[in-house]
Amino acid sequence: MSHTNKPIGEEAQSKLDEYRKSIDNIDAAVINMLAERFKITQKVGAHKAKHKLEPADKKRESEQISRLRKLSEDAQLDPNFSEKFLDFIIEEVIHHHKGFLDSE
Amino acid sequence: MSHTNKPIGEEAQSKLDEYRKSIDNIDAAVINMLAERFKITQKVGAHKAKHKLEPADKKRESEQISRLRKLSEDAQLDPNFSEKFLDFIIEEVIHHHKGFLDSE
Repeated sequence: MSHTNKPIGEEAQSKLDEYRKSIDNIDAAVINMLAERFKITQKVGAHKAKHKLEPADKKRESEQISRLRKLSEDAQLDPNFSEKFLDFIIEEVIHHHKGFLDSE
Repeated sequence: MSHTNKPIGEEAQSKLDEYRKSIDNIDAAVINMLAERFKITQKVGAHKAKHKLEPADKKRESEQISRLRKLSEDAQLDPNFSEKFLDFIIEEVIHHHKGFLDSE
């Protein structure tokens, strides 16, 4: 299959723009929800520090993975993607959490 | 700071459970939105293949990054995280898109 950089027809461009607007709306919603999620994980970090609890909880993570895989199947999303997504988020939380501890 | 595995008090556990329920709700919402997002990017992939367009569009990606960084600032989320998040999603879309092309 060959690709070109020539302008596409007006109708095809309009359809592409429509898809992109939906993607942009979804991304804005996801970013705002992740902002809320980080606010909560910061509270969890402070709460765990106060009560001298381990920052990581393997049992909880394992439950989260099972739950997200099940949710993904229902939503016709690749469960492996959801597991990778959770890993990515948790890694970022740990990164933020370290920053939080360092700043005490 | 020392960490222990001993059970925490009822009140502290209840607060932790409350935080986790909110995180679970947010994760379910995000997973469902990402499922919708992948449905759209699959359509975009098919649309681009039909019109012989390049699968990747650097100008579009650069606009998405700028937009998400701005949105993140408004939501008090680390803009670098949002950029990494978009990279992660786009990589997954490319991975899915290759699968899509392979299956034709």
